[in-house]
Amino acid sequence: MAKPKKTPRPKADTPKGFRDYFGAEVTQRAEMLRKIAAVYHRYGFDALESAAVETVEALGKFLPDVDRPNAGVFAWQEDAEGDKPGDWLALRYDLTAPLARVYAQHRNDLPTPYRRYAMGPVWRNEKPGPGRFRQFYQCDADTVGAPSVAADAEICAMLCDCLEEVGIPRGDYVVRVNNRKVLDGVMEVAGLSGEDKAAKRGIVLRAVDKLDRLGVEGVRALLGEGRKDESGDFAAGAGLSAEQADVVMGFLTSKERARAKTLDDLRNAAKREDGLLASWIATELDYHEEPWKLIEERFNAGRYAGLLVLEELSKLVGDSLVGNQGIDELEMITALLDAQGYGPDRIVIDPSVVRGLGYYTGPVFEAELTFEITDEKGRPRNFGSVAGGGRYDDLVKRFTGQEVPATGISIGVDRLLAALHAKGRMQQTEAGPVVVTVMDKARMADYQAMVAELRQAGIRAEVYLGNPKNFGNQLKYADKRGSPVAVIAGGDEFDKGVVQIKDLILGAKIAESATLEEWKDRPSQYEVPRDQMVAKVREILDAHR
Amino acid sequence: MAKPKKTPRPKADTPKGFRDYFGAEVTQRAEMLRKIAAVYHRYGFDALESAAVETVEALGKFLPDVDRPNAGVFAWQEDAEGDKPGDWLALRYDLTAPLARVYAQHRNDLPTPYRRYAMGPVWRNEKPGPGRFRQFYQCDADTVGAPSVAADAEICAMLCDCLEEVGIPRGDYVVRVNNRKVLDGVMEVAGLSGEDKAAKRGIVLRAVDKLDRLGVEGVRALLGEGRKDESGDFAAGAGLSAEQADVVMGFLTSKERARAKTLDDLRNAAKREDGLLASWIATELDYHEEPWKLIEERFNAGRYAGLLVLEELSKLVGDSLVGNQGIDELEMITALLDAQGYGPDRIVIDPSVVRGLGYYTGPVFEAELTFEITDEKGRPRNFGSVAGGGRYDDLVKRFTGQEVPATGISIGVDRLLAALHAKGRMQQTEAGPVVVTVMDKARMADYQAMVAELRQAGIRAEVYLGNPKNFGNQLKYADKRGSPVAVIAGGDEFDKGVVQIKDLILGAKIAESATLEEWKDRPSQYEVPRDQMVAKVREILDAHR
Repeated sequence: MAKPKKTPRPKADTPKGFRDYFGAEVTQRAEMLRKIAAVYHRYGFDALESAAVETVEALGKFLPDVDRPNAGVFAWQEDAEGDKPGDWLALRYDLTAPLARVYAQHRNDLPTPYRRYAMGPVWRNEKPGPGRFRQFYQCDADTVGAPSVAADAEICAMLCDCLEEVGIPRGDYVVRVNNRKVLDGVMEVAGLSGEDKAAKRGIVLRAVDKLDRLGVEGVRALLGEGRKDESGDFAAGAGLSAEQADVVMGFLTSKERARAKTLDDLRNAAKREDGLLASWIATELDYHEEPWKLIEERFNAGRYAGLLVLEELSKLVGDSLVGNQGIDELEMITALLDAQGYGPDRIVIDPSVVRGLGYYTGPVFEAELTFEITDEKGRPRNFGSVAGGGRYDDLVKRFTGQEVPATGISIGVDRLLAALHAKGRMQQTEAGPVVVTVMDKARMADYQAMVAELRQAGIRAEVYLGNPKNFGNQLKYADKRGSPVAVIAGGDEFDKGVVQIKDLILGAKIAESATLEEWKDRPSQYEVPRDQMVAKVREILDAHR
Repeated sequence: MAKPKKTPRPKADTPKGFRDYFGAEVTQRAEMLRKIAAVYHRYGFDALESAAVETVEALGKFLPDVDRPNAGVFAWQEDAEGDKPGDWLALRYDLTAPLARVYAQHRNDLPTPYRRYAMGPVWRNEKPGPGRFRQFYQCDADTVGAPSVAADAEICAMLCDCLEEVGIPRGDYVVRVNNRKVLDGVMEVAGLSGEDKAAKRGIVLRAVDKLDRLGVEGVRALLGEGRKDESGDFAAGAGLSAEQADVVMGFLTSKERARAKTLDDLRNAAKREDGLLASWIATELDYHEEPWKLIEERFNAGRYAGLLVLEELSKLVGDSLVGNQGIDELEMITALLDAQGYGPDRIVIDPSVVRGLGYYTGPVFEAELTFEITDEKGRPRNFGSVAGGGRYDDLVKRFTGQEVPATGISIGVDRLLAALHAKGRMQQTEAGPVVVTVMDKARMADYQAMVAELRQAGIRAEVYLGNPKNFGNQLKYADKRGSPVAVIAGGDEFDKGVVQIKDLILGAKIAESATLEEWKDRPSQYEVPRDQMVAKVREILDAHR
């Protein structure tokens, strides 16, 4: 008895790796983007909004794999026009590749340097994981056409301002700065420069990038013969000699060494004189009554440690030209930032900041939140990185053949929102509207007039538009909406020219904890003349603010 | 002598039909969206942001054409997983289809009725034309799960508030309201109901939709035998009899007839008594000293004309049930809106509003700007429609099998922005930043400190980051940036502890028109002590505000 097949109903699902955002999730992100945009704008950056769709050709990154242009991106081919096959189009995977295309396309009309900011979703055709989605927001600022490290310093200062603007106070974050050129210098000293060593350098870079996860010993093993990973598989190493590995590890750990030495020096200097340190302390003494306290607690001995890091790096790069250039740039960046008031309590030189250095050509930066949060398993951990960027001088060249210097930053707004939530600095939900209930369907015009009055007074308000028969359902609805106040008026109230105003927040509190007596004594519902409705609602809203 | 082929450089172009938006284009749209969102929010609507990507299955509209699921949308197939072929994904083509999917997916967690707003880009895989792009913004608000026309009335009121909030004053717009059910009733009376007449009704609908373009005669021809279009091709008509066509045309032109009759009646009523009109005038007389003036000039005789339209429609639909239901709904909508203060100066019943009625099941609305603008050929024309919407009760049913009533609006923000520009109510460009020029590269830290001071005072400012050798280039840059002020300091200034502050707006004015004498008399450059830099810059900015 075969029945005719019905077309099955479509599944109401987001595609795998995508999600919907509701209410406060949307408005809080919008508000954060607005605040960051205001800072970018104040720094002279102009808004740019390119389309979500680019030609695969312009995006570039994925071109080498010609047979499968959609690896990593969402791509499709346009319909052919006559004999001409359609272009391959793709969703942008970041905001930097479109910037390079825009600058190349419009460079005659744009100012040079061109400071631009952009914010919006980007897409990655990757396997989604927990908390990892295939569409997410980026929020970037870049300066194109400015070769000077003053542009990099400006980006770092702006990054600090952005974090403070969205609610991360000074002391809760640090911007760590490194320079790709210093690593190049270190490679040179370790005898790893030259075309023929490119593969080896690649292994070194990947090993160095794993410091966080593998620790000093693990990275050291990967620089040498290799190591067994957790699954027991053997990962071949770069095969560096012990001396070569020492140089690279010295680079990676120079901040830690400088910090340890700083603390030693500070402790000793309290007892005896010391040239450099003494003069530096003298300067501090001019300004502060308790310089030691200040240095150790507030500045975390940062400026001195910064000098020591540069000293350490200087030893490591020897007379490598590019290495010394890198160190000079780091010195200039910190000096420029100091002059603007962005000192070592906010800006720290840290050679362990790697950020997939292959992409960058000069300074790199990373903003890290320094406070602890509790993870989903109840363990404390550092929140970690929320923004990163650096100098990349080759992106526009693909289009024009000319090298165009560029530097920029990308702020992870979703991670920043998560951080503010984790610290309890942001409400999970937003306040619901005042709900005008419907006791008498025939009086809908009166209810609409009430709600219009409330809105005109700037109060978020709505009339109940479901089936009004069951009044309990209306109060359940108000509860689900998170409404602070319900307005109630039936035949009696209209006759008397009054309305009932119910304080739902107080009502919920009483219901939770009060005895019957208290319930009677603490009314959460008030009868007021109709023309005092707005005033009474506002009074209740203000009381709960 | 074959040379090895080089990989050609990629073209720096947006894909066909896409474009980039710069500076004020981006910030003005963002600001408009923020204002509209604030109104939506005040009405109790919650934000929703779904992903740009949906399954083709969930989007639905395009399913019939199984072989070519990407007609009209940008679509692609996911990689297969083992034996399972990948899903077809697509970019959303509007914000309503995703809403239906979201409501069906999350209906147990969402309040009912669910009021939501959404704003963001949508994509259409169509042939682009002048001013017509394949990515554009929509800005929607919808109420799902509210069967009452109170929900439709609320949407109309909210639409008025949105327009006024973004800078379209009362009197410069009108929200026109119609009801699909009235047309259904008219079809019934014309003998065009029933499954077997569906094709005929389709031709009638398409003809009716062309009133603007073809005029009364053209539409009438299409209802009958057909007509020759401009190119000489013959378009077959619906083949209605003269009587049938009369009914449909009567529907379409009822607003014009009602308006003509209103003016006649008003003129006559000034001389003699008349039942209905007299009592209506009496009511108006209670409130206004000069009712006739008020009625004719300010209200455009709207309320009375509205009553007459309903009267006309009543005659047309006879005793058709659905037709009369439609008229009742229109009456209720206008009554509810009147009660909230949204009278016929803003809300007009207009049977010629069609809006692809096939999609809608009840009330439909359209916001039209009533002022004239000058088109690109210098001719005056009405700006026309900037928003539209209506009730659609079948969208969620696809997923759940249950009919869920819904009504909503979509505001065309790009058209609204164009209208404000056309009326000169919005600047084409935004003010550029104050530019701190670089006279001495070695003093970059000092320039950075200046610019930091300006920013901390809330002034948009930047330091020149290009090659500073040619000072003329720096002023050209400031000009290209639209900078109001340049700050200049070289060795002399630093020695004297002063800065030069150049008023670029005044400078440009003088350069345009002044004689040499005037030039000398009206300095546009000031020397001030370094610690008065911020105050002087602010003084100049305030003067140009």
